[in-house]
Amino acid sequence: MIKIALSQYNFWVGDINGNTEKIISAIDKVQKEKIDIIVFPELSIVGYPPQDLLLKKHFIIKNTEAIKKIASYTKDIIVIVGFVYNPPSSTDIYNACAFIHKGKILDIYNKLNLPNYGVFDEKRYFKPGKDISVYSFKGHSFTVNICEDIWRKDYVKLLLDKKLDFLINISASPFCMGKFPLRRDILSYAARQLDCFVFYCNLVGGQDDLIFDGGSMVLSCNGDVVKKAKRFKEDFITFNFPPSRMKSYPIKEFPSEASFEALSLGIKDYVRKNGFKKVVVGVSGGIDSAVVISLATLTLGRKNVYGLIMPSEYTSKSTFYDAKRVCENLRIKYSTISITPIFKTYLETLKIIFRDHPFDRTEENIQARIRGNILMAFSNRFGYLVLNTGNKSELSCGYCTLYGDMVGGFGVLSDIPKTLVYKLAHYINKRFKKTIIPYTIMKRSPSAELKPNQKDSDTLPPYHMLDPILKLYIEDNLSLDEIVKKGVKRRLAEQVIRMVDKNEYKRRQAPLGIKITPKAFGRDRHMPVTNNFSY
Amino acid sequence: MIKIALSQYNFWVGDINGNTEKIISAIDKVQKEKIDIIVFPELSIVGYPPQDLLLKKHFIIKNTEAIKKIASYTKDIIVIVGFVYNPPSSTDIYNACAFIHKGKILDIYNKLNLPNYGVFDEKRYFKPGKDISVYSFKGHSFTVNICEDIWRKDYVKLLLDKKLDFLINISASPFCMGKFPLRRDILSYAARQLDCFVFYCNLVGGQDDLIFDGGSMVLSCNGDVVKKAKRFKEDFITFNFPPSRMKSYPIKEFPSEASFEALSLGIKDYVRKNGFKKVVVGVSGGIDSAVVISLATLTLGRKNVYGLIMPSEYTSKSTFYDAKRVCENLRIKYSTISITPIFKTYLETLKIIFRDHPFDRTEENIQARIRGNILMAFSNRFGYLVLNTGNKSELSCGYCTLYGDMVGGFGVLSDIPKTLVYKLAHYINKRFKKTIIPYTIMKRSPSAELKPNQKDSDTLPPYHMLDPILKLYIEDNLSLDEIVKKGVKRRLAEQVIRMVDKNEYKRRQAPLGIKITPKAFGRDRHMPVTNNFSY
Repeated sequence: MIKIALSQYNFWVGDINGNTEKIISAIDKVQKEKIDIIVFPELSIVGYPPQDLLLKKHFIIKNTEAIKKIASYTKDIIVIVGFVYNPPSSTDIYNACAFIHKGKILDIYNKLNLPNYGVFDEKRYFKPGKDISVYSFKGHSFTVNICEDIWRKDYVKLLLDKKLDFLINISASPFCMGKFPLRRDILSYAARQLDCFVFYCNLVGGQDDLIFDGGSMVLSCNGDVVKKAKRFKEDFITFNFPPSRMKSYPIKEFPSEASFEALSLGIKDYVRKNGFKKVVVGVSGGIDSAVVISLATLTLGRKNVYGLIMPSEYTSKSTFYDAKRVCENLRIKYSTISITPIFKTYLETLKIIFRDHPFDRTEENIQARIRGNILMAFSNRFGYLVLNTGNKSELSCGYCTLYGDMVGGFGVLSDIPKTLVYKLAHYINKRFKKTIIPYTIMKRSPSAELKPNQKDSDTLPPYHMLDPILKLYIEDNLSLDEIVKKGVKRRLAEQVIRMVDKNEYKRRQAPLGIKITPKAFGRDRHMPVTNNFSY
Repeated sequence: MIKIALSQYNFWVGDINGNTEKIISAIDKVQKEKIDIIVFPELSIVGYPPQDLLLKKHFIIKNTEAIKKIASYTKDIIVIVGFVYNPPSSTDIYNACAFIHKGKILDIYNKLNLPNYGVFDEKRYFKPGKDISVYSFKGHSFTVNICEDIWRKDYVKLLLDKKLDFLINISASPFCMGKFPLRRDILSYAARQLDCFVFYCNLVGGQDDLIFDGGSMVLSCNGDVVKKAKRFKEDFITFNFPPSRMKSYPIKEFPSEASFEALSLGIKDYVRKNGFKKVVVGVSGGIDSAVVISLATLTLGRKNVYGLIMPSEYTSKSTFYDAKRVCENLRIKYSTISITPIFKTYLETLKIIFRDHPFDRTEENIQARIRGNILMAFSNRFGYLVLNTGNKSELSCGYCTLYGDMVGGFGVLSDIPKTLVYKLAHYINKRFKKTIIPYTIMKRSPSAELKPNQKDSDTLPPYHMLDPILKLYIEDNLSLDEIVKKGVKRRLAEQVIRMVDKNEYKRRQAPLGIKITPKAFGRDRHMPVTNNFSY
């Protein structure tokens, strides 16, 4: 019998020392137990994705020293761990997996399939491996592979004649909605094709825009999930192979719950890994900021969250009251600062050049930017991270003010369509069994309140119509004609596409935001700003 | 004799219709002349780099229709043109070169070597080609290849036994300082190794952060440049092969001149390709804004440039006077707007939460952000593009205010180290034979003037010491130890590295800026924000 442990840990990008210590202490702990094989995720030593740190020679050297140090601590146990392999006297590097036993690196597997699409850019750094290693241990044969490998059917085919008893896949597979059941399907396919067990060890933690959601699992030969780890949390699971008896676990994902967990982990890890403790949020009385400050408070604790309510002469009483209600429901500290005197001084000052031009989006933006300045001043003075509250629908259409409501170190809702923001609000109230987010906020028509009686719907189509069009255009990359064929009115589709295209420049300066959908902005979607292609 | 024309044109990303028309009208024009082969740059049809437009199926289809349309216009002439090749009933795409003659695409060459480093990400989109084509025409044999191909010695080796009379390389090779003579060396090596002529046709134009500098050339078998096109401008050159007699041209680049030309083209193309006509610049009386507004005026004309002088109580008289002098020397319109009343209103408003905390960087940033707001308000009202004036030294160290002096649609000096900013200032005065930029500006110690008697040198090392350290760290990717070995004091090197690392979050929200050095920020350098690696 072989006892295998999957260490679903939160490794930090760049933190070679910290990650190495974490690995060594895990090995230390299990060496006394009857564990045979301990598995760590892809690139555990350097964190994932290390990006251009990989171009620093001394970074690679430190990583190599780290894997040797880990080897020196390894006794009877087998350690399977991801690192960067740099063959002696070569400048090539590989996304690799070390097979360590009795103080030595006995074998190194180099990832064959390097993902280079969406958020992935592994071909920028790594050479692909060429060989598969099959190991034999206690009469059982197994192989190791890395993340993308197992997603490729042609790779699975390569293993068909290897007569494996099990395989170990180490991954750093980022979250997006729907990926968890998809992963199960992919792993299940491999298990069934190869008639072997699959041990899947995934990374957990937030890294800039990416959330690694864990969810490590063991699958039996018939593709059933027979053991699973937690999601969005560190976990450590063990499994005896071959098992004496097995239970099968369902794999389900609920969009509101999964996005809540992902956003929560995203906030927590961005805040702590960047040396912050506290955050400040501009609370408008609208749904976006209500959801963000609730998420932040539920994640970081009420003492670590501050609300800034910044009403103007265009803020309705009910909105203002709701903003206060959210803060009070959460029992966080907050201040109210009217932007009116500052706004009036701007208007007075700019009279010289603006003369008697009528009020337009210029004055709207000035107000949004005053709020941005106040939020940043608060951040500068007290060291709080500003959480940005913009959602994906408005970011897509450019319905937001650069340097205004677009300020902040981290965009919590950047990849959350407005319709999902509402679902999250309901989910939060339901999950915590109280009205954190007042239902009046959910019912009120969305408004930026930058001029009298303004409504989002003056400028944008209703969100329940907008969001599906955005999905077709941004996630599915459809043309205007194809979108029209899906039943969208041509004029409406055209209007939406134009807004998305012409606002690329704004998104280029947007804060980092948490990826939730299959196609986020940022590193997931590389669009030129200067672009004369239409539809 | 074969007459070959190199069409060094400015193609626009995404503008398939416009680019196609441009190609067709060039073909039309030369079909009556005795041109045998007309050459267009890499990916002329779609512009370079098309980025994720390549993921849209209908974009690829339009590109395919375009190349067919071009073929249908082609009579006796041979057309060599870059496009995206999508083989029938395949989803693969190639960075390809069409060989068109008498209405037909007779051959397609697929780029063998896909660059995927620095600013390049061709492996995200393209499959590499497998075959080399050798053509025979009027008793001469030649091949075509694409950009990166010719930079690889192993590729040149593949051609050794092909007995070529000449080769044609179509490129979209972006500018950085020193690349022009390097290109000559690379092409010269190929010419000498293969004992053949080299026809090099490069793209020209600005595309977001990238400047394609043209500089197409013809090299003889012994590696001499025997014909060259203009740099930073469209050009069309012809060459008779074999030539009856040859002249050899030197290839030289002067850093100030080259960066002036690159910045000028960058401004011009960003402005016009994004539908702007006019720009506005915040003029502080310092060297950065003086250089930017001079560049803008010399490029766009004085009627298209507006200066905003925004003094505060910390602005010295001499600085203020210099700001006005620059605008007057350039004969542009400008306004003076004091930020003091707005600043005072902010202080008054924020008293509630700031209480009697002493003046610190919070108040400094508030001032910078007031200026940012005013610039953006001007842009919103009058439709002027805001040019950002931050230089690479301060962007590296984070010595700049996010949403303050970091506002703007386009960063003219983002990749220009401060020491080069001074050289550019001298160059501008010399080139235009008058004192556009007052020498008092060049002589005054740099200051942000956000508090009394502030100097850049209070926070940063002197620029003549800082810039070389930044180069070692950012361009050369050296470790702390390696930088110290180059003769830099450890404490100083540490201080600089720390500043660079911890300000990645600011750069993430910086405007697009023009790449000038071998390693710019932005798409050239993918560093994680959350990063626990040090030195």
